[in-house]
Amino acid sequence: MAHTQLSLKELQEWDATDSLARVREEFSLPEDTIYLDGNSLGALPNRVQQRVSEVTNVQWGQDLIRSWNTHAWVDLPQRVGQKIAPLLGASSAPDQVVCCDSISVNVFKLLAAAMTYHQNKNNDSQRIHIVSSQDNFPTDLYIAQGLQELLGNKRCQFVDVPEDELMNTLDDTTAVLMVTQVNFRTGRKLDIPALTQQAHKCGALILVDLAHSAGVLPLKLDEWKVDMAVGCTYKNLNGGPGAPAFLYVNQRLHSKLQQPIAGWFGHVAPFQMDPTYVADAGIKKFLAGTPSIISMAAADAALEIYDNIDMTIIRNKSIHLTTLFHKLMEQTGLSQTLQLISPTDATERGSQLSYAFEYAYELCQALIARNVIADFRAPNYIRFGLAPLYLRYQDVWHAVHHILDVIESQDYKDPQWAQRHAVT
Amino acid sequence: MAHTQLSLKELQEWDATDSLARVREEFSLPEDTIYLDGNSLGALPNRVQQRVSEVTNVQWGQDLIRSWNTHAWVDLPQRVGQKIAPLLGASSAPDQVVCCDSISVNVFKLLAAAMTYHQNKNNDSQRIHIVSSQDNFPTDLYIAQGLQELLGNKRCQFVDVPEDELMNTLDDTTAVLMVTQVNFRTGRKLDIPALTQQAHKCGALILVDLAHSAGVLPLKLDEWKVDMAVGCTYKNLNGGPGAPAFLYVNQRLHSKLQQPIAGWFGHVAPFQMDPTYVADAGIKKFLAGTPSIISMAAADAALEIYDNIDMTIIRNKSIHLTTLFHKLMEQTGLSQTLQLISPTDATERGSQLSYAFEYAYELCQALIARNVIADFRAPNYIRFGLAPLYLRYQDVWHAVHHILDVIESQDYKDPQWAQRHAVT
Repeated sequence: MAHTQLSLKELQEWDATDSLARVREEFSLPEDTIYLDGNSLGALPNRVQQRVSEVTNVQWGQDLIRSWNTHAWVDLPQRVGQKIAPLLGASSAPDQVVCCDSISVNVFKLLAAAMTYHQNKNNDSQRIHIVSSQDNFPTDLYIAQGLQELLGNKRCQFVDVPEDELMNTLDDTTAVLMVTQVNFRTGRKLDIPALTQQAHKCGALILVDLAHSAGVLPLKLDEWKVDMAVGCTYKNLNGGPGAPAFLYVNQRLHSKLQQPIAGWFGHVAPFQMDPTYVADAGIKKFLAGTPSIISMAAADAALEIYDNIDMTIIRNKSIHLTTLFHKLMEQTGLSQTLQLISPTDATERGSQLSYAFEYAYELCQALIARNVIADFRAPNYIRFGLAPLYLRYQDVWHAVHHILDVIESQDYKDPQWAQRHAVT
Repeated sequence: MAHTQLSLKELQEWDATDSLARVREEFSLPEDTIYLDGNSLGALPNRVQQRVSEVTNVQWGQDLIRSWNTHAWVDLPQRVGQKIAPLLGASSAPDQVVCCDSISVNVFKLLAAAMTYHQNKNNDSQRIHIVSSQDNFPTDLYIAQGLQELLGNKRCQFVDVPEDELMNTLDDTTAVLMVTQVNFRTGRKLDIPALTQQAHKCGALILVDLAHSAGVLPLKLDEWKVDMAVGCTYKNLNGGPGAPAFLYVNQRLHSKLQQPIAGWFGHVAPFQMDPTYVADAGIKKFLAGTPSIISMAAADAALEIYDNIDMTIIRNKSIHLTTLFHKLMEQTGLSQTLQLISPTDATERGSQLSYAFEYAYELCQALIARNVIADFRAPNYIRFGLAPLYLRYQDVWHAVHHILDVIESQDYKDPQWAQRHAVT
């Protein structure tokens, strides 16, 4: 497709033969909106509307406390984990994934567990470094900084380096390498198998944040021998705003890692109400408190969309979408004004494209005013998330032509966009 | 009322003049069910049904990512906190309460903050003890045990003693006294002002779990000079299954406590995406990750029920309900068979009554089969929660007569109840 001029008609034909076109019908999307922010908050699946209503009005309202047993709320974290596992390539052993808390809390649990693992279990007191990249998602960095404060510099030191220096920074003082597979700003995809191999060569563990991966990239955590992972269900998994996160711990580590937030849901038998904590032997030990059932049930229902869809089909469409988007940016000449900061090779990026532009914030606001929803990221990036489950090729055409309109008309210079507000 | 025989007709008259009777209309209660478990999971308010539908279908479904700003999801934790504050007597300074995470996670944050406070801030390295009662709710005990494991015995040791020995256990090695105001098994209400005073006299902080207090007891955290508190919104606050918890930190401690789970929602400016954590100066520093909006919005709507209701009216009805319940247990002779383990003085207990009975589990199951919902608590207690917002005096009459029927007919000896299952 590189050397031909694309037309809207041609893209409509692509949509007509898209094997994922039927999946779009599963979502309740607002009319007249082109939604390029599914990697911030996924769209609402119809089945989630039904499930939320059922859980709230019937399970809670009518069945009340009995639902912890009769509707199996009590093991919802594990059941949702079982639905996520195949999307992560985490099914070679059972029960390695569980849905719980937020990414921030889960990163804390797993980093702390990793530090204790080296220091208490292996008596390896020189392994005090958490290594990450400077451009990792801020909350992951903050959690590592907070853990250092709590444990003290003698037990824990956080080290951040540029993404490209991660490999060479690892050594026998590294306790854990913490990386996000897909960079939230640039969309660059890191080589997790290689980083895992290097971490293990140095005797370190690896913790991978899959926030921008789960649901759009085929993952092979077991095969790659990843130790630990976290991710959220509210982006590409469409679980709803702030829906509970998930965590993965490879089975070989279940007996070796001690989870520091020892809440009752991680107890081997929580309802015996024993005064002494005895951790569950399996993935349940990574739970802490009572789960938020309505939000978690929404995520549970959203995951059903992935039944019977091969992740390679999703990834192929994602690659077609980002390739098409940039091709149209070139075809319209916009790529002269907005500079692509994502990898040019589609296989080296996630399901997003980011462009640097002096007026990125104002452009983003002007697009939102036209119901083309993109994301601004500091300092001057506009980010377009391309969700393969519900985005059409023709939507990409219209989105790029809206950008063209805004740029050509200099709409983005309207003073109403000049005032920067808090942006999520 | 102690010496007269009560009749159903008389109780129906009480209901007719009950100033809280109109509040019952705000709930979606199943017909033919007598719900005596609102202290495990509160009933569903009608307005929550509407709010959950609105947040899911409109705010998420139609407004999508924009709702973080346009519907102010971004400060929902603080806004819910502001609604809870007056119920806690926490309004003498603004922004001392925030809604977030689970009780377990919040206990972890605050205990860890308390340990660091003494050791880093005050250089008081001998203050290593977390003191609590053996009969505190298990997850609180577990969290303290887990923190001890993480920090090591030299920095943190957990000490549990019988409830009556708490006062005398405190000394200059106590970092924090952790108590639950109302015992989940017995309903006994501890003297928080006295315990706070004693903790402070010893130089320790106090952390109070209000799980069975918030929404049924008038609380005066500011006046009592309580340092820190946690509680849940899914019991008497009717926020829904596993709805997010809350935490209170007295304003005098905001600048002194460092929260160890340093997630981005606690950052002074999270959306600047700065790589370095800078804690917010106020209550927001106690947040960690992205909040589960649907579940938190449910709690937010449920709290509106408390607008314009004086907590002393709720407490008065609660005292009348528990007094009536036990009076009927005496009047029917049931108090000979089921032994009251809650304080006999209604002012010394929360809004529940617990009875010891050899077949408590089986009795509980037989009652549930009759749609009289109570709770079993190990080893042999049956617990009746009496929710003043929606329970009628006539419900208490019928409940006690169902118990009488089951006991007299020996229904509870039916083999189908003999098999004990996991009970929540």
